[in-house]
Amino acid sequence: KLNTPSTIDIMREGETITITNQSIGGGWVEAQNSRGEVGLVPEDYIEVTPTPSLGNVAASDLSFFDAYAPASTPAQNQATNGNDPWSAWNADPSGGSTNNWASNPEGTQTGKSAPDPWAPVSHGHPQAYQGPGAEDDEWDDEWDDMKSTGGYAESEAGESGALQRGGSHATSMKISLNKFPGFSKSGPELYLLCKQLVKGKDRLPIYVGEVGPVWSYPETQLDCVVADPKKGSKMYGLKSYIEYQVTPSTTNRPVNHRYKHFDWLYERLLEKFGSAIPIPSLPDKQVTGRFEEEFIKMRMERLQGWMTRMCRHPVVSSSEVFQLFVTYKDEKDWKMGKRKAEKDETVGVMIFSTMEPEAPDLDLIEVEQKCEQFSRFTKSMDDGVKEILTVGHEHWKRCTGPLPKEYQRIGKAFQNLSSVFTSSGYQGESALTDAMTAAGKTYEEIAQLVAEQPKKDLHHLMETNNEYKGLLGCFPDTIGVHKAAIDKVKEGDKLVAASKITQQDKVTMAKRASTMSYALQAEMNHFHSNRIYDYNRVMQLYLEEQVKFYETIAAKLRQAHSQFTTM
Amino acid sequence: KLNTPSTIDIMREGETITITNQSIGGGWVEAQNSRGEVGLVPEDYIEVTPTPSLGNVAASDLSFFDAYAPASTPAQNQATNGNDPWSAWNADPSGGSTNNWASNPEGTQTGKSAPDPWAPVSHGHPQAYQGPGAEDDEWDDEWDDMKSTGGYAESEAGESGALQRGGSHATSMKISLNKFPGFSKSGPELYLLCKQLVKGKDRLPIYVGEVGPVWSYPETQLDCVVADPKKGSKMYGLKSYIEYQVTPSTTNRPVNHRYKHFDWLYERLLEKFGSAIPIPSLPDKQVTGRFEEEFIKMRMERLQGWMTRMCRHPVVSSSEVFQLFVTYKDEKDWKMGKRKAEKDETVGVMIFSTMEPEAPDLDLIEVEQKCEQFSRFTKSMDDGVKEILTVGHEHWKRCTGPLPKEYQRIGKAFQNLSSVFTSSGYQGESALTDAMTAAGKTYEEIAQLVAEQPKKDLHHLMETNNEYKGLLGCFPDTIGVHKAAIDKVKEGDKLVAASKITQQDKVTMAKRASTMSYALQAEMNHFHSNRIYDYNRVMQLYLEEQVKFYETIAAKLRQAHSQFTTM
Repeated sequence: KLNTPSTIDIMREGETITITNQSIGGGWVEAQNSRGEVGLVPEDYIEVTPTPSLGNVAASDLSFFDAYAPASTPAQNQATNGNDPWSAWNADPSGGSTNNWASNPEGTQTGKSAPDPWAPVSHGHPQAYQGPGAEDDEWDDEWDDMKSTGGYAESEAGESGALQRGGSHATSMKISLNKFPGFSKSGPELYLLCKQLVKGKDRLPIYVGEVGPVWSYPETQLDCVVADPKKGSKMYGLKSYIEYQVTPSTTNRPVNHRYKHFDWLYERLLEKFGSAIPIPSLPDKQVTGRFEEEFIKMRMERLQGWMTRMCRHPVVSSSEVFQLFVTYKDEKDWKMGKRKAEKDETVGVMIFSTMEPEAPDLDLIEVEQKCEQFSRFTKSMDDGVKEILTVGHEHWKRCTGPLPKEYQRIGKAFQNLSSVFTSSGYQGESALTDAMTAAGKTYEEIAQLVAEQPKKDLHHLMETNNEYKGLLGCFPDTIGVHKAAIDKVKEGDKLVAASKITQQDKVTMAKRASTMSYALQAEMNHFHSNRIYDYNRVMQLYLEEQVKFYETIAAKLRQAHSQFTTM
Repeated sequence: KLNTPSTIDIMREGETITITNQSIGGGWVEAQNSRGEVGLVPEDYIEVTPTPSLGNVAASDLSFFDAYAPASTPAQNQATNGNDPWSAWNADPSGGSTNNWASNPEGTQTGKSAPDPWAPVSHGHPQAYQGPGAEDDEWDDEWDDMKSTGGYAESEAGESGALQRGGSHATSMKISLNKFPGFSKSGPELYLLCKQLVKGKDRLPIYVGEVGPVWSYPETQLDCVVADPKKGSKMYGLKSYIEYQVTPSTTNRPVNHRYKHFDWLYERLLEKFGSAIPIPSLPDKQVTGRFEEEFIKMRMERLQGWMTRMCRHPVVSSSEVFQLFVTYKDEKDWKMGKRKAEKDETVGVMIFSTMEPEAPDLDLIEVEQKCEQFSRFTKSMDDGVKEILTVGHEHWKRCTGPLPKEYQRIGKAFQNLSSVFTSSGYQGESALTDAMTAAGKTYEEIAQLVAEQPKKDLHHLMETNNEYKGLLGCFPDTIGVHKAAIDKVKEGDKLVAASKITQQDKVTMAKRASTMSYALQAEMNHFHSNRIYDYNRVMQLYLEEQVKFYETIAAKLRQAHSQFTTM
C-alpha cells in the first residue's frame, strides 16, 4: 500500500507471493506474501513461475535496496532479480544503447530487423524466413510438455536470438508480467553482497597459466557428434518432428534430441552461465517448407557447431545440465533431470559464487582496465566480423548470380559464332569451329564452377564468422554485468558512510569483483584461444579451396586452348 | 524544261553541265550543257566536281535510261551514276531496310546512334566521343588541300563510317546537291551493258583453286608496319597533326602519313573497289583531349590493323593507289599520284570490267544461289559478332569495375579483422595475424590483376570482332550490287522483247553477271580464309592469356595459404 522500506522488508528471497495489483506503475506491483502481508514490490524482482495458476511468484531478498527505491528506474537497468530468468535485460549486442525491457518487451534480436547478411534469401538459403511451417506442431507440443513437466513451457514461435534471452516464454503466459525477457542481469550486488556463498560440488577453479587466468580444462576434451536426423512422432503419429542423434565421445552412446531440447538446454545454460560466459544462440527456428531437406542438413550442421563450441568450454561441458543432455539414460531420467535443472538457483550473477581464482586478489583499477580492454576488443571484433559477413554476402550473390551468367553468355556467344562458321560452306572450317565450340562449352562449365564454389569455401568462412557474431553478441551483456559490479564496488566508501553496508561488506565486494574479473579474463583467454584456432583453420580451408578453384579453371582453359591448331 | 526523253538524250557521259534550276523536285534538276541545250537530269547522275566554281558538274551516258525516266524514283535505288562517287547509296549494313540518300543524305553510320558496344566510354576508352578537339586544325587544312590539289576536299568533321561512303564532302560544298553520300551503287547495267570494256594493265584474273574461285595472290604477301607517331606541322607551326611512319616490306623505306591521308586512301579504295570488295572504314576520327597519348596509341594500333588487312588483299595491295600510298617518293610524287587516282574512271561497278575469270561462265541460277548464300552467311556472322561484342563489353565493365572492387573489399575485410586481432593483447596472435594480413593484401593484388586483365585478352578479342563488324558492314552494299545485277539479267528477255536491248546485249549481260559472281566468290573465299586465320589466332591468344591469368591468381593464393601454420 505504501512505498515504505518496511513494505519491502517483508518480502524474502524465494518467497512465493501473490500479485494483487499489477497496475501500480512506475515499475512496482502490489503483492501479498504467504503471511498475508501486502506491499509493493519492484516488478524486476518478480519471477513468474509458469504454472496455470498465474498468481504465484517468487521474490528475492530485497533488503539491500532500502536506499534504492523508486528512484532507480528500470531504465537504469539496475534493479533486477538474479533468480529471475524473466528480469529486464535488453542490450544492443553491437555495443549501442541499452534498451530496458519496459520499452522493448520482446527483446531486440540482432539480425532480425536488419537484413541478415548471412541470409541470401533469394538463393534459397534455408536461413530464409518464410513463415512458420513444420514447427507448428512443435508449438502445440509445448503445452504437452508444460503439463508433464509442470514447469517449463517453450514457445518456439517467434525469436530465439542472442538477445531474446529466455525466449518468448512470457508471451505464452498472457500476463502483464510478460515483460520479463529473461536474461539475468541481476544486480551484481546480489552476488557482491550475499551473506553465504553456497559451496557445492560445482566449484570452478581459475588458475593462472602462461597466458593469464584460465579455466580448469579437462584432460580429454569432450566431443559430440550430431547426426542422423530422423523423423519422430508423438500422439500416435499426429505430430511429428525431426530428431537428431547426439553421441558424446565419453560414452559413445547416442541419445536422441529434437530441436526443442537443444533450445531447452540453451535456456538453461544461458540462465546459469550467461553472466560470465557467452552462450551463443542456437540456429534459427523457422523452417522453409520447400527446402526441407536442405534446411535439416543446414540446421544439423549448425547444431553440430553449437554443440562443439559448448563441448569445448570446460565450464559448460562439465556442468550437470550439459552432462544430462548428452548422457541421459531414458525418458524418466531426462524428465527428472530437466526438473532438477529448472530448479537450479545458482543462476545469474550467483554463478560467480562457484568460481575460485587461485591467485591473489586484483585491485579495482586492474579489474576496470581489463573490463574496458575486453569491451573494446569485442566491439572492434564485432565490427570486423560484420564487415566480413557483409562483403561475403555480396560476393556470394555475385558468384551465384551475375558472374556465372556472364561466363555462360560468353560461352554461348562463342558457340553461336562457331555454328555460323559451320554454315559457311567453306572447306576447312571444322578445325576452328570444333575448337571454338569446345571453348564455348568450357566457359559454360566455368560458369557452373563459379556458381557452386561459394558452398565450398565462402560457406565455411561465413559460418565461422556468423558463429562469432553470435558469440560476440553475448559480450555486451556479460560486460555490462561486470561494469555494474565495478560501479557498485566504487560506491563502497559511500555506502559504508551511509551505513548501507559494513566495512566488511565493502571488502567482500572488492574481493568478489576480483573473482568476477578472473572469470572474465579466463573467459577471454578461452575466447582468444578458440578464436585463433578457428580463424586459422577456416582461413586455411578458404584459401585451399580458392586455390583449387582457380587451378581447375586454368586447367579447363588450358585444355580448351590445346584444341586450337596453329595455322 | 520538259521531262522528255530527248532532254536526257542531250546529255553525254562525262559532259560538264551547269545547273540552272535545282528546285525541280522529284529527283530532277534542270541543267544546261556546253552546247547551250537545257534539259532535266536525274540528280543521281550528277557528279559534283568540288571546285570553287560550283556550277560545273559532269554527267554520264544516260541513253540507256529511256525506259527508266521518272518512273524509277530514287527510292528504288536504281538510277545512279557509275562514275559518281556521290550517287545515292545508303543501305543498312545490318541487313535491314535500305535508305535512299534522298531521305538520309548524310548516310547512316552503324554504331553511331546505337551505343557502340566496343566503346566503354566511362572507362576512358579512347573511342569515347567527346567532341572535336585536336582535329579542328585538320578541318582547316582541307581548304589548303583543296586549293593545292584542285580536287579532293576532305571533311573530317563528322562521320566517316562504313556507310558514309565518300565522307561528308557534300557538306562542304554548300549546295543542294549535297545529297550525294558517295557510294557508287551505280546501276549495274552500267557494267552489264557498256559497249567496250576498257582493257588495261589493271586486269584481275580469277582462278579456280581447291576452295573455288580465288584472286591471284602475290608470291610474297605485302606487309606494312605503322609506327612511330610524331608530331608534324604546317603553316609555320600553327597547325599540327600526328604523322605515322608506314614501312612496306617490299621497299623497307618508310613513308609518312597523317590520318587524313589514310582517309583519302580509304575513299579511293572504296570508290574503286567497293562494289566488289568490302573496304572497312578507318578507326574513328574524333579525339579526346585528355587521353591523347592513349588515343594515339589506340589509333595507331587500329590503323595498323587496317593496313594489314588491306595488304593481305591481293587486289587492293597491288592497286596503283595503294602502291602510291606506301611507296611514294616525295611530296610532288604524292600530289601528282593523288590527282591521277582521283581521276580514275574505272570505279564503282566498272571495276568488274577489269576482272577475268579463267573458268566457264556460270548460269544465273548458280549465280543467284551463291549470292543468297553469302548474303545469309554475312548476316548471320554479323549477328554472331555483335553478340560477342555485347557480351565482351559487359564483361569488360564488370572486370574493370564491380569485380575488382569486390576483391578489394574482401582483402580489406581480412586485413581489418587481422588488425583487430593484433589489438587483443593475447600472446601468440602474430602467426595468425601476419598470415591474415598477407591474405588480405593478396586479394587486393588479385583485384588489380582482374582490373588489368581485359587489356591483355579481351581487348584483342574485341578488336578482331570489331574489325569484322566493320567488314561485314560492307557486304550489304556489295551484295546489293550483285542482286541488282541479277535482277537486271533476269529481265533480259523482257528487255529484248521491248527492243531496249539486243539479243547480243542479253548474252553479254549474262556473261558479265557470271564474271561478277566469280568476283564475289573469290572475295568470299578470301574473306573465309582470313576469317579462319584471324579467329584461330585471336581465340588462342585469348585462351592463353586467360590460362595465365587464372594460374597467376592460383599461385598468389597458394602463397597466401602457405603463410598459415597448422595449429
